[in-house]
Amino acid sequence: MLAVISGPSGVGKDAVLGLLRSKAFPAAFITTMTTRAKRAGETDGVDYIFISKDKFQTLIERRELLEWANVYGNYYGVPKEPVRQALRAGRNAIVKVDVQGAASIKKIAPEAVFIFLLPSCFEELSARLEKRLTESPETLKRRLATAPEEIEQIGEFDYFVINREGELDRSVAEIEAIITAEKCRVKPRRIEI
Amino acid sequence: MLAVISGPSGVGKDAVLGLLRSKAFPAAFITTMTTRAKRAGETDGVDYIFISKDKFQTLIERRELLEWANVYGNYYGVPKEPVRQALRAGRNAIVKVDVQGAASIKKIAPEAVFIFLLPSCFEELSARLEKRLTESPETLKRRLATAPEEIEQIGEFDYFVINREGELDRSVAEIEAIITAEKCRVKPRRIEI
Repeated sequence: MLAVISGPSGVGKDAVLGLLRSKAFPAAFITTMTTRAKRAGETDGVDYIFISKDKFQTLIERRELLEWANVYGNYYGVPKEPVRQALRAGRNAIVKVDVQGAASIKKIAPEAVFIFLLPSCFEELSARLEKRLTESPETLKRRLATAPEEIEQIGEFDYFVINREGELDRSVAEIEAIITAEKCRVKPRRIEI
Repeated sequence: MLAVISGPSGVGKDAVLGLLRSKAFPAAFITTMTTRAKRAGETDGVDYIFISKDKFQTLIERRELLEWANVYGNYYGVPKEPVRQALRAGRNAIVKVDVQGAASIKKIAPEAVFIFLLPSCFEELSARLEKRLTESPETLKRRLATAPEEIEQIGEFDYFVINREGELDRSVAEIEAIITAEKCRVKPRRIEI
């Protein structure tokens, strides 16, 4: 099964996936590829897979990306091959993408399970974004401005999980329940990518 | 949400529901009504709600039963009113019925969540039925003969849970996951009965 976890910036996608990972949840966590330079403290293969622009272009041409975007000159994308490998081995694959990325994935893998992470309120989102020291005030403002439009896309998703401040355990338990329930479906979802 | 738990005789529906109940799972467990005489050890309102044939007939006429059947002269049926009460109070309602009963409920409440309990093998089913001392060899034979046809109905259900011998906890955890996941659906199921 392919689970796509998405939601606006600052909703806590990384925290949720981090906790799932640390609980040894049985799934392949697919790492995004990027052409941007590695920052201090980042690990290749964990935070991102860092590759050259040439290699990224080749992946685009070969249609080997589930979704990709060019953000201010840097490419970001989710490779198909590790998803295929996980599914072939009978494992769950979990992908983390922004809301636009989820829309792209839905076009080529409509049978994936789409989970939308919601903040409990807009203030929570802005407080979380402000805590991030890596971002400029302009980026912060832009991210906050995009959130309402992104939340409008929720109708395209299968499930929503409200990621309340201080209740990360609960969010993760709900995502685990969704994945367990999906495996109990009489009509399984078939992913062909 | 209305969850309908079904499956062939001997698959362990009562054991699963008993464990859910004892864990104080937040749901209204709907008790079946019957016109048959109370047996030793049975409690009115727990095992069944025991009512007269006249009252049962009135419920049929008023269409106040989610499903009902006449088994060798005795009526059995699931009342709508406690389901409505639970749903109005924002609670889950859980109904336990045989496979034919589930098919009837699907006609009037297609938006219910239908869960099929499966045995891990046919031998397990027959061993469990044989352990029941309340049944005659004829009843046992008939129940076993019906099981394959009943299992063929699984396509009409949303989920299946394999109730393996000695793994009741796992079956119950899967049912809890299904109900939790269903509550996270972006498009909720609306029950109108």
